Formats: sequence, C-alpha cells, structure tokens
Amino acid sequence: MNRYALVIEYDGTNYHGFQRQQGLPSVQQTLEEALSLKLQHGVTVIASGRTDAGVHARGQVVHFDTNVDIDCSDFGWRMNPLLPTDIAIKKCVRVDENFHARFGAKKKTYVYRVYLSKIHSPLKQKYNHVCFYDLDVPLMQKACAYFVGEHDFRSFMLSGAQVKTTVRTIYDMHIEVSEEGRQLDFYYTGNGFLHNMVRAITGTLIDLGRGRFTLEQIPEIINSKKRSDAGKTLEGCGLYLEKVYYEGYDNI
Amino acid sequence: MNRYALVIEYDGTNYHGFQRQQGLPSVQQTLEEALSLKLQHGVTVIASGRTDAGVHARGQVVHFDTNVDIDCSDFGWRMNPLLPTDIAIKKCVRVDENFHARFGAKKKTYVYRVYLSKIHSPLKQKYNHVCFYDLDVPLMQKACAYFVGEHDFRSFMLSGAQVKTTVRTIYDMHIEVSEEGRQLDFYYTGNGFLHNMVRAITGTLIDLGRGRFTLEQIPEIINSKKRSDAGKTLEGCGLYLEKVYYEGYDNI
Repeated sequence: MNRYALVIEYDGTNYHGFQRQQGLPSVQQTLEEALSLKLQHGVTVIASGRTDAGVHARGQVVHFDTNVDIDCSDFGWRMNPLLPTDIAIKKCVRVDENFHARFGAKKKTYVYRVYLSKIHSPLKQKYNHVCFYDLDVPLMQKACAYFVGEHDFRSFMLSGAQVKTTVRTIYDMHIEVSEEGRQLDFYYTGNGFLHNMVRAITGTLIDLGRGRFTLEQIPEIINSKKRSDAGKTLEGCGLYLEKVYYEGYDNI
Repeated sequence: MNRYALVIEYDGTNYHGFQRQQGLPSVQQTLEEALSLKLQHGVTVIASGRTDAGVHARGQVVHFDTNVDIDCSDFGWRMNPLLPTDIAIKKCVRVDENFHARFGAKKKTYVYRVYLSKIHSPLKQKYNHVCFYDLDVPLMQKACAYFVGEHDFRSFMLSGAQVKTTVRTIYDMHIEVSEEGRQLDFYYTGNGFLHNMVRAITGTLIDLGRGRFTLEQIPEIINSKKRSDAGKTLEGCGLYLEKVYYEGYDNI
C-alpha cells in the first residue's frame, strides 16, 4: 500500500464545505470520485481539516492510500481534466505510511480577505468581505499582538461546537494592505483553529477598526471567553485555507 | 430634461457583453430595466463603448436622460438593491445636456490580468488568463514602448471588424507585477481601442515573453498590419474596463 499527499486548491463557492454530506455537493465527494475513476478503486481522502460551506483553499492537504504506483511529477496534470474547474490538484507527494493529513498537521495558515469600498463591489463580493466603513488599520495591526501566543479562544468559537480544548496557539497574525489601502488580507498562522475562529476574530478586528471597540477591550474580549462579547462571524466567502505545514515535509 | 452619468462596475461572467441582444442577458438590458423601474419611465443608456461577452468593468460610464430630479449623493445605494449582485452603480453625476458617454470619452484605461501558474488555478481562472509558461517579464515591459504613441493597430483587430480607421493612440502601457511575480496586470491607456485590441496585444506580449517572438519582431508585427502575424486573442474573462476619462469631468 502506498500513501500519497495531495495539495489541493478549490473555489468553495459552489460546495457545501469540504466534508461529504448526503445529497449536497462537497469537495471531498468530488475529489474522491475523480480519484476513484482514475485509480480504478474506491478512494477515501483524509483532509487536514474541514472547511465550511463557501470557504476556499489554496493549500488544503489530503492523504489517501492506493496500491497503484503513482507518478507524482504530473499527477495534477493528469487528474485535473477529471475534476471540475473549481477544484485542482496542485501537487502530489509520496509520503510515509504514518503520515496523516489531519493528525500530522503542525501549523496552518488561513487568510481572510476584506475589501474596503463605500459601495457594493460586484468584482470583489464573491471572494471578500466587503466593508463599507472607514477603518483604523494601524490600530487593527496593533491589536493582532493580543492574539499571538497560547490563549483560550472560546470567545471566537461557534457557540456549541464540540471540542476537547478551546486553547490554541497563534504564531503569527498580521494584516497585509494592498490596492492603495482598499484590500486588507488578514493572515493567521497557528497550531489549529476553532470552528469559525478566523472569521470571528476578523469580525472583531473590523469592529475595533470602525470604533465599536477600543484597543483596551480586545484583551478583555479574549479573556471573557464569551462569544457574545466578540464581533460577528464574517461570511465564508472571504476565507482561504492558505497552507498546512508538516514536519519533515517541506515539499508539501 | 436632466442628463446623468453613471460609473458602473460589473462582473461580466454571466452576461453576453454590455450591449442588448435579443434573448440573451446583457448588462445594458439589466441596467435599463432597473433604472426604468426606479424612475418610472423607460430609460435608455448610452455607454462609453461595448464590452464583449465575459469582459468586466470597474469603471464603465453610461449616460441617460430623465425628467426626474435625482439626488446623486446616494443614488447607487438606492439603485443597487434593484440590480443583481454582479452589477453596481458606483457613482452618479449630473452632467451637461451635451455630455456624451461615447463621443465625449477622451481616454480609456483597460487592464488585462494574467496569472502565472504551473498548473490550473481554480481561484484565478475566472478572472485572469492563466499562463503555464515561464515568461521574461522585463522583456515584455520593454516591448510596451513599441506600442505607445499613434499607430495603425490593424494587426491586433478582430478580422473583419468594421471601423473607419484602425489608427489609435496609446498614451501609456505597462505591466504591474504582484504576488511574488505571479500576478501580471497589463495596463493600457489610449484614446480608443479596436475590437479585441487589448486581448490581442496581451497575447502577443505573452508569446514574446515565452520566446515565440523576439523583441525585434514586435515593431515588425505592428507594421505588418496583418492579424495573423500577431499572437492570439486571450479570453474575455481577464479583461477589465478600468476607467473612462472626460474633459471637464474629473469627478467621473
């Protein structure tokens, strides 16, 4: 049995998330069907984690097992014609049998994109949260420091989500500004993220930037561990799973 | 009678171009229907020019006449709920009765977006030409100089297009590079553009960049006035009408 890891890019717009769901289109089902067709046996993929409905990925990682000896060098080129245009295999890597896309993930980077516009933007709305307000971006940049490190992020988790611990570590968090200040890309790198965590933190930073919170309130919101104290969860269409990191696999 | 100019943004993906066409969705028809509904009389809009099927606009300009006294300050906010999410009015300006969106246009800026990727990109393919080849971008930047100025651009016009003259002036042409060299945005500003001209010049520059043409061939291709000598016309989805300029109307 050979184990392979795939790096996948997808446009989540037309999917009800990564995970298979009865009667609804999912990235997992679409991918598994294409792989099964190619490899001529049923294939099950294990992902680094689920992404929610409408969420995109530039670097989702999955692994699967097969008896087929795959030529990794051009596997994407041979597979992509079997996939719809909104899902692509970017890379295929032969991995050890104890490689695990989910349990082996050491770090993940997510990006949340926000576009500042005084009025609706047809060209940005599908892949960003469009924000109509003036934002104090330097203040938001400052606030990122409060989130970096090990914290209980319960204030930013979907209420009622089942999880062993709500403690996570954020290694890096910053905002990249482009397009003359209109495009804000929020980068989050951490050892893991709670359900809705990136979307809720970004929503909270926007509330800070538009003056609904003060900088001093940010650590209070983190410490309160009450979801209702933080800002709102932004829509999925602005969220991208950018990269997943594995020890010993710099090529993934 | 009052005349108004509108600055429009649209995602051209789902339209058969700007211009009304019997039985096919067009930006013009969608816009006219929404304006007619709002103003309670039939409205005809005149655009700065047509855009082809699938082509986008960040700054298309149209004008129309009405007896209604429009409050321009929030006309977009009031109109956009009547429009689909892929078309938006960004600005409304009261103009003189002799303002004409098409005949008064002094300059236009188009952008053609190219994304460099060794493999299919689900997240870029809808709004870019995805190029799989390595490109010599500095050479392509150099070649831009050959196009600037007044030239007969027949080599880059859709064969058989009906037009009085194929002479146009390009005032500025350059390539903006971002995303660590992967995103190339080709900017074209000129007094007017022939049918497919921007898409054919960009295709020719890509052929230059990947070594199918030499730099010395570029002026020869321009001078030959034969469409078959130039590179191919790239797809509409990477093209954006960025801005239209009018004398005396810096606010449009």
